[in-house]
Amino acid sequence: MNTFGRHFRVTTFGESHGVALGAIIDGCPAGLTLCEEDIQMELNRRRPGQSKVTTPRNESDSVEILSGVFEGKTLGTPIACIVRNADQKSKDYEMFRDIFRPGHADQSWEEKYGYRDHRGGGRSSGRETVGRVIGGAIAKKILYEKYGTQILGFVSELGGVKAEIFDAEEREKNPVRCGDALAAEAMLKKIMDAKRASDSLGGEITVFIKNPPKYLGSPVFGKLEGELARAFLSCGAVRSFGFGSGGGAKDEKGSSQNLKREGISGGISTGDDICITVSVKPTPSISQPQTVHQKDGSVQENFIIGGRHDPTIPPRLVPVLEAMAALVLGDALLAPVVRMDLL
Amino acid sequence: MNTFGRHFRVTTFGESHGVALGAIIDGCPAGLTLCEEDIQMELNRRRPGQSKVTTPRNESDSVEILSGVFEGKTLGTPIACIVRNADQKSKDYEMFRDIFRPGHADQSWEEKYGYRDHRGGGRSSGRETVGRVIGGAIAKKILYEKYGTQILGFVSELGGVKAEIFDAEEREKNPVRCGDALAAEAMLKKIMDAKRASDSLGGEITVFIKNPPKYLGSPVFGKLEGELARAFLSCGAVRSFGFGSGGGAKDEKGSSQNLKREGISGGISTGDDICITVSVKPTPSISQPQTVHQKDGSVQENFIIGGRHDPTIPPRLVPVLEAMAALVLGDALLAPVVRMDLL
Amino acid sequence: MNTFGRHFRVTTFGESHGVALGAIIDGCPAGLTLCEEDIQMELNRRRPGQSKVTTPRNESDSVEILSGVFEGKTLGTPIACIVRNADQKSKDYEMFRDIFRPGHADQSWEEKYGYRDHRGGGRSSGRETVGRVIGGAIAKKILYEKYGTQILGFVSELGGVKAEIFDAEEREKNPVRCGDALAAEAMLKKIMDAKRASDSLGGEITVFIKNPPKYLGSPVFGKLEGELARAFLSCGAVRSFGFGSGGGAKDEKGSSQNLKREGISGGISTGDDICITVSVKPTPSISQPQTVHQKDGSVQENFIIGGRHDPTIPPRLVPVLEAMAALVLGDALLAPVVRMDLL
Amino acid sequence: MNTFGRHFRVTTFGESHGVALGAIIDGCPAGLTLCEEDIQMELNRRRPGQSKVTTPRNESDSVEILSGVFEGKTLGTPIACIVRNADQKSKDYEMFRDIFRPGHADQSWEEKYGYRDHRGGGRSSGRETVGRVIGGAIAKKILYEKYGTQILGFVSELGGVKAEIFDAEEREKNPVRCGDALAAEAMLKKIMDAKRASDSLGGEITVFIKNPPKYLGSPVFGKLEGELARAFLSCGAVRSFGFGSGGGAKDEKGSSQNLKREGISGGISTGDDICITVSVKPTPSISQPQTVHQKDGSVQENFIIGGRHDPTIPPRLVPVLEAMAALVLGDALLAPVVRMDLL
Repeated sequence: MNTFGRHFRVTTFGESHGVALGAIIDGCPAGLTLCEEDIQMELNRRRPGQSKVTTPRNESDSVEILSGVFEGKTLGTPIACIVRNADQKSKDYEMFRDIFRPGHADQSWEEKYGYRDHRGGGRSSGRETVGRVIGGAIAKKILYEKYGTQILGFVSELGGVKAEIFDAEEREKNPVRCGDALAAEAMLKKIMDAKRASDSLGGEITVFIKNPPKYLGSPVFGKLEGELARAFLSCGAVRSFGFGSGGGAKDEKGSSQNLKREGISGGISTGDDICITVSVKPTPSISQPQTVHQKDGSVQENFIIGGRHDPTIPPRLVPVLEAMAALVLGDALLAPVVRMDLL
Repeated sequence: MNTFGRHFRVTTFGESHGVALGAIIDGCPAGLTLCEEDIQMELNRRRPGQSKVTTPRNESDSVEILSGVFEGKTLGTPIACIVRNADQKSKDYEMFRDIFRPGHADQSWEEKYGYRDHRGGGRSSGRETVGRVIGGAIAKKILYEKYGTQILGFVSELGGVKAEIFDAEEREKNPVRCGDALAAEAMLKKIMDAKRASDSLGGEITVFIKNPPKYLGSPVFGKLEGELARAFLSCGAVRSFGFGSGGGAKDEKGSSQNLKREGISGGISTGDDICITVSVKPTPSISQPQTVHQKDGSVQENFIIGGRHDPTIPPRLVPVLEAMAALVLGDALLAPVVRMDLL
Repeated sequence: MNTFGRHFRVTTFGESHGVALGAIIDGCPAGLTLCEEDIQMELNRRRPGQSKVTTPRNESDSVEILSGVFEGKTLGTPIACIVRNADQKSKDYEMFRDIFRPGHADQSWEEKYGYRDHRGGGRSSGRETVGRVIGGAIAKKILYEKYGTQILGFVSELGGVKAEIFDAEEREKNPVRCGDALAAEAMLKKIMDAKRASDSLGGEITVFIKNPPKYLGSPVFGKLEGELARAFLSCGAVRSFGFGSGGGAKDEKGSSQNLKREGISGGISTGDDICITVSVKPTPSISQPQTVHQKDGSVQENFIIGGRHDPTIPPRLVPVLEAMAALVLGDALLAPVVRMDLL
Repeated sequence: MNTFGRHFRVTTFGESHGVALGAIIDGCPAGLTLCEEDIQMELNRRRPGQSKVTTPRNESDSVEILSGVFEGKTLGTPIACIVRNADQKSKDYEMFRDIFRPGHADQSWEEKYGYRDHRGGGRSSGRETVGRVIGGAIAKKILYEKYGTQILGFVSELGGVKAEIFDAEEREKNPVRCGDALAAEAMLKKIMDAKRASDSLGGEITVFIKNPPKYLGSPVFGKLEGELARAFLSCGAVRSFGFGSGGGAKDEKGSSQNLKREGISGGISTGDDICITVSVKPTPSISQPQTVHQKDGSVQENFIIGGRHDPTIPPRLVPVLEAMAALVLGDALLAPVVRMDLL
């Protein structure tokens, strides 16, 4: 299942250390102004090697559009985009051919598919999200141009440090992708501490959807919150999802809850802003000795995982979650007409 | 979008005060022993009027199977089931024809569809979940008979009271559907207090999936946790979803997180138990004076909502979430073969 | 796979001799005036026992709408409709429990599903089309009210007799459902001859789609002709499908073919009328001695099939094919917007 | 709608004169031996410039696999393949920017999408089928390796000449792709005559599916014949489809029809060979003077269409229809289990 969406459909492909990654976007309406730079901009926010809190793997992640755009505008036909891998260093991964890295999908994929690309986790790698960001960039453009919708993700907590300010400009200035300069500095310190301790950190991301179009969402099984939850939980390290009152809903009373504007009512967007919070687990790749399971069933103690990793996931996950939110909204936007008078 | 699932597909129908509700289950394999009692049993756990913490609306919710079963076994053809409404008292709802009840989907549905059944919320009512429970009952049966899988939901927190014990038998003895007798008693008191105060309470539900089949889930967009999240968030009052480390993932380090067994790895079930927690908002219908919006744009102050309501949602939501988990697993179970050697 | 359509989705259910048959229509826009009579009218054209050229099984096929309609208008929620079986005479079919009737789906269903309702073919019976006609009636109403589209099917050839006239009113006056009174009489004679000879006849149906909406069809895999072909070939006895030049296309030259207006160009409707022709095989149930295969692998010679049958299929297939064409058009009508300027 | 299949899903992309064409195949099981040559072999049968009866446009159509294959075996992840365009000569098409070529999809696409790549028909070009052949090559390999299934298409009639022999080896020796050497010669003469007359010819293709797997097809809306019909009619120039008795079914009696083995019964494959016949319209591009419509609504008389064209479509359509049949079978093969005892 590598296609997301029913109407605005993104099919992604690619392994971490294969020839290329990318996406086909099918269902994008004709007449949208689109060029490679529109997509590259978002890929740059996701790309490895962009700062000291990301993996040193150096990929320019340059996108090439192969179809669906003619003389600068979309044709309504599938938009195929590819990003070639460059800095693979597959040899570094030879040691993982027969071992299952703790906290990674190595074992479950090996057992389900019976065959696996062990290099960097193959398709279970976070590198898979390149295709998501490509699709999301296009959806974002449609949403912004037509509705002024903005999707803004922030690292809101990391290493116990909570952000108080959500400033979109500030966010792009620090490597943590936090909207609060002071908090960002403290978070950065926590990350460096963990890195030195050969450990990694989890964190929290908050995504704001500002000025969403009204009436998105298809009850009863296509409720907007459900589609968003699926989209966010389909990203590797995410462990929870909440919107509106979120995890705090359990402590509300009807008289207080009824006064809230959560942006979604009965599964349908109201036009009010939507706020989503997700909890993200730490990078499973850490360079301290761990017990690992091997393909032959045996166990190896004190194994040290090599390779290049992010010490924490949230800073690079921000653009991915933004992309996923954009895909959900873009898909809902293209859902069929539900009123005879609008047919 | 009233169909859930790609392979085990449940299409539900029905309004709160219409003629009937029900579901068609398409894709259920042939040869499953099935009778109405198998489904009725689960409907009884969901039905209104079952205790003092549920709405007094009295519906027997008797199910009739119309197709797909022959001489006690499924045919592999669609299984259509209906439940006729009996105790509608639609007149009580005449007052809602032109008003939008706070915290309900009245306004968003009216605006999206341009037309609405105002009686009891129409299809945006929690009564819509009858069809989910029907489908879930069949999926549960397949899972239990083939894999010994059990899906057990519990009210784990309500009115600030947390359950410490998760005893499936105890759970069915108290009206709160809590596995901890002592906690249940305290929760019950909180509910009665809220009811007396013309208010309502939120709460938390924990669902355990015991002995799930291995290898369920279809990366990258059909990851099991994503499908579960969508399923749970598609139930009206749910505001958050977490599995494994859940909301606490943000505070983990790689070295601690890697030791956890969360039941899902890389989007695929490992065979280990899965534990999910959701936060549920309070019933929006409360009988204290509220400000309501009307269809003509005007506002009415100090409006008191009549009708019959649950003072809290979780006790009746437990069987619904169990059903949704069963539908997700049942659907994943029937996903296409992914290995040449198993073809 | 008992759901037809991606946007206007019809899920059908029911066995020939089960409790009931019916359909859920999901995706019908809100605000359509709809009552049971709108559907009954079409069911009456399909129902058994309507004339001497149809099976004597007597079913009133009365439809009941269970949901999705409120005060005479559709709600945009699923419309569930049921038709209860009345004149089943299942005992007549006890003899078929262990035999496979020639030309029927008995053997392939038994082997695929491992379990089968032998009474009247179960779900492989032509009676399954009740649900199609229900869905089609609603789609027809939308198409006619919004676009003046009419879908008119005719028996165009039967027993070697070809119709020359396609008069929609005349068609409803003769039991053959032929638009040409003289041809109808000759066809009727051929049918009666075949009936007397304990045999059955094939025939040809021509369906005209008049005033179809423009721009229906989704290249490259959702071309309108492909969707129509699938819809028509999904009806039991249909063996061929042609549109426009049809089977004669092979004899055209570019210079002649280019002058034709076939109603579909590049998979998209042009607004011109569309004409489709299908060839229909004879009823497999005949009452002359035949060799039959049995469940235990043995063969029985000179077996005479009892039960009640149509001596020819086309007269009752006409409303079914009209329904299928309506479902294809209705679905295409609700396909997502493909232009930015229409978003 | 550029995805074909529900389980074995092929998403194609690319315009005739764009950067590249290709396909992503999602759902191919892991463990299939696959290399570029497996796909190239089929592309070579479709490629332009292969003989004097095909367009002189010279494309090597070299395929590159970007993902989904590791060390010579499929991973169960999406297989992305691209073919770069080389010999575009887009300038030859500048004259078509504002005119609609007769018999082509130019006008309907322009009007539906509001924007169009006029070069060689853009995505409405037959060149779009490159992606189909890529997907089909993989499906063919699975079918042949697992079931010994062979899908063999032949030009069976052209210019009034009918083939009597269907020899698969002979077929690859003549440019007409006919299994009958004598007929091929006569057909070739007819094609050359038409070419000289600045005209083009239609024709007929017969596809044999030998040794298909048993039990493929999903009643009632996923019947195998319906899926095949849709697949074949989704190819540009096809105007009719028949299987088994085909167009002759209308002349059968029950007593004769019941004796036939058509390979599909009740929508399910029986394991017997399946024979399909389609009628194909002539190439619309001809170089004699024609009346053409222009974008501004005006009409131009005696317009001569330039560019490079095939004088007849069937020889190059044979591998495309084979591919489509393979995609239908491959998809049906991966449909969910329908029996409890096989779960």
